Amino acid sequence: MMAPMTTEPAPANGSPLDRSLLVAACLGEPVLHTPVWFMRQAGRSLPEYRALRAGLAMLEACRRPDLVCEITLQPVRRHGVDAAILFSDIVVPLHAAGVGVEIQPGVGPVVAKPVRALSDLDRIPELAPADVAFVAESVRLVVAELGATPLIGFAGAPFTLASYLVEGGPSKHHVKTKALMYGAPDLWHALCARLAQIATTFLQVQIDAGVSAVQLFDSWAGALSEADYRRYVQPHSATVLGSLAATGVPRIHFGVDTAALLPAMGEAGAEVVGVDWRTPLDRAASLVGDRSVQGNLDPAVLFAPFDVIEHEVRRILDEGRAARGHVFNLGHGVLPETDPDVLTRVVDLVHKLSAH
Amino acid sequence: MMAPMTTEPAPANGSPLDRSLLVAACLGEPVLHTPVWFMRQAGRSLPEYRALRAGLAMLEACRRPDLVCEITLQPVRRHGVDAAILFSDIVVPLHAAGVGVEIQPGVGPVVAKPVRALSDLDRIPELAPADVAFVAESVRLVVAELGATPLIGFAGAPFTLASYLVEGGPSKHHVKTKALMYGAPDLWHALCARLAQIATTFLQVQIDAGVSAVQLFDSWAGALSEADYRRYVQPHSATVLGSLAATGVPRIHFGVDTAALLPAMGEAGAEVVGVDWRTPLDRAASLVGDRSVQGNLDPAVLFAPFDVIEHEVRRILDEGRAARGHVFNLGHGVLPETDPDVLTRVVDLVHKLSAH
Repeated sequence: MMAPMTTEPAPANGSPLDRSLLVAACLGEPVLHTPVWFMRQAGRSLPEYRALRAGLAMLEACRRPDLVCEITLQPVRRHGVDAAILFSDIVVPLHAAGVGVEIQPGVGPVVAKPVRALSDLDRIPELAPADVAFVAESVRLVVAELGATPLIGFAGAPFTLASYLVEGGPSKHHVKTKALMYGAPDLWHALCARLAQIATTFLQVQIDAGVSAVQLFDSWAGALSEADYRRYVQPHSATVLGSLAATGVPRIHFGVDTAALLPAMGEAGAEVVGVDWRTPLDRAASLVGDRSVQGNLDPAVLFAPFDVIEHEVRRILDEGRAARGHVFNLGHGVLPETDPDVLTRVVDLVHKLSAH
Repeated sequence: MMAPMTTEPAPANGSPLDRSLLVAACLGEPVLHTPVWFMRQAGRSLPEYRALRAGLAMLEACRRPDLVCEITLQPVRRHGVDAAILFSDIVVPLHAAGVGVEIQPGVGPVVAKPVRALSDLDRIPELAPADVAFVAESVRLVVAELGATPLIGFAGAPFTLASYLVEGGPSKHHVKTKALMYGAPDLWHALCARLAQIATTFLQVQIDAGVSAVQLFDSWAGALSEADYRRYVQPHSATVLGSLAATGVPRIHFGVDTAALLPAMGEAGAEVVGVDWRTPLDRAASLVGDRSVQGNLDPAVLFAPFDVIEHEVRRILDEGRAARGHVFNLGHGVLPETDPDVLTRVVDLVHKLSAH
C-alpha cells in the first residue's frame, strides 16, 4: 500500500479531472462548488455515535477498525459532507507507541508520568508503522466504503502533543510547557523531535493506507507569540509537513487563536491553513501567502437562528474567494450540544451558494 | 468627593509635573521610567494575601474596606509597583445591585438564575452609587494610605459581565451568550445597556472617591470576530468609556486574544489599550492609533529562568517605545503559583532598564 514516491501527485488524488473537490480546493484548482466538512463531525453531536460509543472507552474505540469505519462514515451519510475525517484522537499514536496516556471522559488526555526531565524522554519511544497497524486497517476499510468521497487523516502537531505530555493533561495556560520550553530548550527540542517522528510516521501510515489529505492539528499553538512559535514550534511542524511533501497528498495545518501566527503557520509548509473565526478569510488569505484556507464558521453560530447562520455562511464564502482555494469548515470542532440537523442544512447551503 | 466636571484634568491626576508615572504614561507624556504594575498583583500569589483571606468568602472580603485596603496595599509594599489596583471582582457591582451571583472557590462567578429572556432583565437592576458605598470607602482608605502611588479602579465591561449572566458561570466557548446575541439582538442590547449603566456608575463612584485611573476589563471579548465585536460589544464599552471622558481620569481597556480586535478596541475610546503577549507592542501601537499600550509579558514566562525573563522584559520595553506611552504589565493576570520574588525582580528590572 506504499504510495509511489514521485514528483507527480499520488494516485489517491487522481488526475486533475478525477480529483475530489476537497483535494482540488486544497491545491487551489477550480471546483464545481466549495467542499465542506466539519472538525469533530464524527462525534458526540450525533446520536448514532453516542449509541455506538456507549460503555466503550475512547482509546479502545479508536483501536477497533470496524467501529472506526462506522463512526467515520456516520457524518458522511447523514450530512453529505465532501470529506470524511478518520475517527481517532491526537494521543492515539502516543498510546500506540507505549506512552502511558488515557482519555478520561469529561477531562481529556491524562498522562501518567509527565515529561519534565531529559530522562523522561525514555518514556517517549519511536513510533513504528506496525504499532498503528490498526489505523492502517481502519483507513483501508473506510476508503473502500467511501467510494469517491475523500478521507482525511490527521495527527497532533509536536507543540500540542508536547503540551499534554508536559502538563500531564489538558491545560488552560500551558505554564509547565512554556517553562520547559524557555528553561530547557535542549530538552524541549529533543522532545519535539521525537513527537515530530511520531506524527510523521502516523501520517505516513495513513497516507500509505489511502487517505486523500492529512490535517496536522496544532490546536494550542495560539497560546504562543509569533516569535516563540517561530523559535520553538514551527521547525518541528515544518519537519512533519516537509517529510510528507513527496507524497503529493495535500496537507492542512490548523490551530485556534492564531490571528498573530498565520504568516508563520503558512510558512510551516502546508497547502492549506485552517483559520478560526477571529480572522476573516480574506485577511487570512493575504497573511498565509499562496495557500488555500480552511474555515471559519464560529461553532457557536450553529446555535443561532438559521437566518443568522445563512448570513455568516454567505460572508465566509465571499471572503474565502480571496484565497487560492477554500475548504469550508468551522473555526474549531463541532460542539457536542450542536443540533446535527443544522449541520446538514449548512452543508446544503454551502453547496447551493457556491455552485458554479 | 465629587471630581469637578471641567475640561481640565481632575485634581487627582495633578498638574503635569505632579502627575504619577502611571498617569503620565497613560497620557503619553514623558516619564522618568516606565511604570509597572501587574493584573491580579493583589491576590493568590502572595502568602500574606492567602493568610488574610483564609476562611473568608471573596465577595465578603470585597465588602470590607479595612480588608480591601490591606490587600490592595500588600503588592505595593512588597513589589514597589507604580500603581495599586483596587482589590475587587468584576461581579461586585452586580452583587451590590442585587443580582443573585456568588463566587465559588475553584469555579468563579456563578449566577443563580441566568439571563435568557426579556423578563430576566428585571433581575438586573440599576446600580445606585449608595449600593457600592463600601467601595467608595475602600478607595478613600487606600488613597489615604498610598500617598503618591496612584490607585487604579476597575469594572468588567458589558460583554464579559453579560457572558457570566447568560452562561450562568465561567464559560469556555460562550455558546449561550453568542446564541442570545445573534438570536435576540434586542434583548442583547438591552442587557448590555443595563450592564453599561452598572459599569459606568461603579467606575464613577471609584473616580469620585479618588482613583487616578480606571481599567475596563473585557477579558472575554477575544472570543469574538472583529465584525461581531463592533456590532454587539464596542458600542456598549464606548458608552462606559465615553461617560467618564469628562473626568479626565485615564481609561485603560483590556482584553485577551484580541490580536484581531485591537483597532476596534482602540476606537472604543480609552487612552490605553491592554495587549496580551500574542501581539508585540510595536505592532499593537500601530493598530490602536494614537493611544498608549499596556502589557504584555506572558504570565507563563515568570516560571522561566530569570535570564529568559530579562530578555523578554528588554524586548517588551523596546517594542513599547513605538507607542505613545507604555505601562508595563503582564498580558493577563498573575497566575496563583507565581513566585512573588520574581515579580519584585521584574519591577526592579523594568525600573532599571527604562530609567532615563
